Amino acid sequence: MTDTAQASDSTQAGYDAFKSRRLDLNLTRGKPSAEQLDLSAALLALPGSGDHQAADGTDCRNYGGLQGLPEARRLFAGLMEAPPDQVVVANNSSLALMHDAVTFALLKGTCDSAAAWSAPGGIAFLCPVPGYDRHFRICEDYGIRMIPVALGDDGPDIDEVERLVAADPSIKAMWCMPKYSNPTGTVYSDAVIERLASMPAAAPDFRLLWDNAYAVHHLTADRLAIANVLELAARHGHANRPLVFASTSKITLAGAGLALFAASPANIKWLLARLTPRTIGPDKINQLRHVRLLRDAAGIEALMDRHRAIIAPKFQTVLDVFGERLTGLPDVSWTTPKGGYFISLSVPRGRARRVVQLAKEAGLELTPAGATHPYGKDPDDRVIRIAPTFPELRDVALAAEGVAWSVLMACGEPSA
Amino acid sequence: MTDTAQASDSTQAGYDAFKSRRLDLNLTRGKPSAEQLDLSAALLALPGSGDHQAADGTDCRNYGGLQGLPEARRLFAGLMEAPPDQVVVANNSSLALMHDAVTFALLKGTCDSAAAWSAPGGIAFLCPVPGYDRHFRICEDYGIRMIPVALGDDGPDIDEVERLVAADPSIKAMWCMPKYSNPTGTVYSDAVIERLASMPAAAPDFRLLWDNAYAVHHLTADRLAIANVLELAARHGHANRPLVFASTSKITLAGAGLALFAASPANIKWLLARLTPRTIGPDKINQLRHVRLLRDAAGIEALMDRHRAIIAPKFQTVLDVFGERLTGLPDVSWTTPKGGYFISLSVPRGRARRVVQLAKEAGLELTPAGATHPYGKDPDDRVIRIAPTFPELRDVALAAEGVAWSVLMACGEPSA
Repeated sequence: MTDTAQASDSTQAGYDAFKSRRLDLNLTRGKPSAEQLDLSAALLALPGSGDHQAADGTDCRNYGGLQGLPEARRLFAGLMEAPPDQVVVANNSSLALMHDAVTFALLKGTCDSAAAWSAPGGIAFLCPVPGYDRHFRICEDYGIRMIPVALGDDGPDIDEVERLVAADPSIKAMWCMPKYSNPTGTVYSDAVIERLASMPAAAPDFRLLWDNAYAVHHLTADRLAIANVLELAARHGHANRPLVFASTSKITLAGAGLALFAASPANIKWLLARLTPRTIGPDKINQLRHVRLLRDAAGIEALMDRHRAIIAPKFQTVLDVFGERLTGLPDVSWTTPKGGYFISLSVPRGRARRVVQLAKEAGLELTPAGATHPYGKDPDDRVIRIAPTFPELRDVALAAEGVAWSVLMACGEPSA
Repeated sequence: MTDTAQASDSTQAGYDAFKSRRLDLNLTRGKPSAEQLDLSAALLALPGSGDHQAADGTDCRNYGGLQGLPEARRLFAGLMEAPPDQVVVANNSSLALMHDAVTFALLKGTCDSAAAWSAPGGIAFLCPVPGYDRHFRICEDYGIRMIPVALGDDGPDIDEVERLVAADPSIKAMWCMPKYSNPTGTVYSDAVIERLASMPAAAPDFRLLWDNAYAVHHLTADRLAIANVLELAARHGHANRPLVFASTSKITLAGAGLALFAASPANIKWLLARLTPRTIGPDKINQLRHVRLLRDAAGIEALMDRHRAIIAPKFQTVLDVFGERLTGLPDVSWTTPKGGYFISLSVPRGRARRVVQLAKEAGLELTPAGATHPYGKDPDDRVIRIAPTFPELRDVALAAEGVAWSVLMACGEPSA
């Protein structure tokens, strides 16, 4: 106990010293920094005077073109790993497209549904945890029951997923972030993806809501590739199971990008039929703008390399500080993502909210503990999402120190 | 009968001569012409290099700002006749916003609803006819019963509307195009607007879906103003009744504009709450682009004057040809709109589809007869929508001749 008390004294001193600097830091925002947005500065003056004609002669200024410009669908076909005629390019953002896919299914059902998903009885979605709060928010808002499934190193607990999906026809969908998952950075293994694509489902209209938000958002030179869920699902007789979403929000401009969708021909037909009462077509000028800026898959890759050069050092700084300050602390661990926008920090059971509170008192805003779980409630109160991209590198280093001192303080306190 | 037969002979000759020119004309599209789109050519290079900061310091490139940029809301406050804090500026288009308002109400109800509109029992919307096919399409798609109400010279048959709305709590909304209505050009009188704003409604969450699509789209120097439905509704204790929609689609670029919404504070709060699960915010760069181009209400007015200079002669050409060829023909009449995008042509009962068919055979595409009515069915088969804005003036003149010959032919044929 004497050792703990002594450690506590030095921790208290470190925390107090941090607090006394009266900093105003923020690690909550999964947003690109201004420096990253500057990489797409050219977009602000594109397509440019007189440039409004698509390759097929379409006047992009006028109405129409529900599926998106052909050259935009070609541009993103590689990222979406689907042929251009199985790609839809829409207005920002992918969240809106995911929301609309869910509400369309609630109101009208999918192309494989016998009834609207909102029909009496209630439906459920599987939610790998920790996960993305905005996925969970859609479910909460529309009264869709959320069934948490543990996310492991290679993806969701696939045995549990298979068991649940095979048994319960009210389970209509599953949120998946297969690559550099928010907030853990988890990459689904090819074996897990194949089992998701092939498993029997009690609901004939079961869907994988495949949010590939970080498809090209690598943090290392190793540009990880994952199995193609559309191909695997088709091979196993479930072609309509995956609905694949992505966007350019963290490629070009976060607020002014394009949403991307890929799926089977039947799902594309379904989505376009569902979109028809809603819109005559997307903003094709913004699509032309993106085509002019990015040009091709190599253009996207080159741009993402420049993003990596800006944000990888921020991630490394957090990892360095955590490694130095928190290594060996019981029940404290963190992820080392190879892509995406987040690090997930695990603290001893029942301490996450306390860490966030201590950080706040010391001038550092962290994502509320629990945000990574359905209804904002982490039953173990263990997970904290760290978002290092938005602040400047110098502030990221300071903030990481603040996190470390807050964790050390919380760990040194008596159990509640 | 001899007279008729002679008229028929000369009509046949005129129609045949038109047909023999093998033209390829189209009066179906309520779209701005390329010449109109050129008026906003500057938009293609706006906001311009380095210009991404809003007046309040917001970086428009990044996430956020659900209600729209403050300067964009100020810019359109005049057009929307509401204070900026009661305006929402969203991505294109107003159709999407109307669709979403309806689906949000179906799934969750309005801020005055005891239950979601999709709850068992079914709901109905009042639909002034002739009207806008895309309004009717939303109802048809979501199984909302449509109750047609005759549109007169000063708006919908208000006695009938009052009677229906007071008696039937399943009537949840009414489509209204109060100014230069599609396709008749009808302008609601102040008296009708006040009765709509003040009438008792059996449904406590009854809504006027107030599509003011042509608020500033005048065809004459007389810039018609109509009563302010938001003010009147508030004065009569029904502040939440009107949901006002408009867009810049026919001000700037048809496919790349902004959608506009205005309503009571409670409705604004409701819409923003409903939008929250769907999006982090709209494309603020496109809003900044519009602010830079249009600047203020005077900038909008000046631009609309230039639109009028292009399209008013096209309308006049149609009216001149109809006046010359069709005057005095029994049961044939047409509207003389002071704004908007359409002329509505009425032909003798049971002849509209035949006119469209004859026109098609002569190389002229017209909007399908019936499109102006719920389910695409005009029970009298009388109304044909004429859209003169998109073709060049020379082609509009030719097309109007084609319409006239087709009407004359159809009127000369024996009754079916």
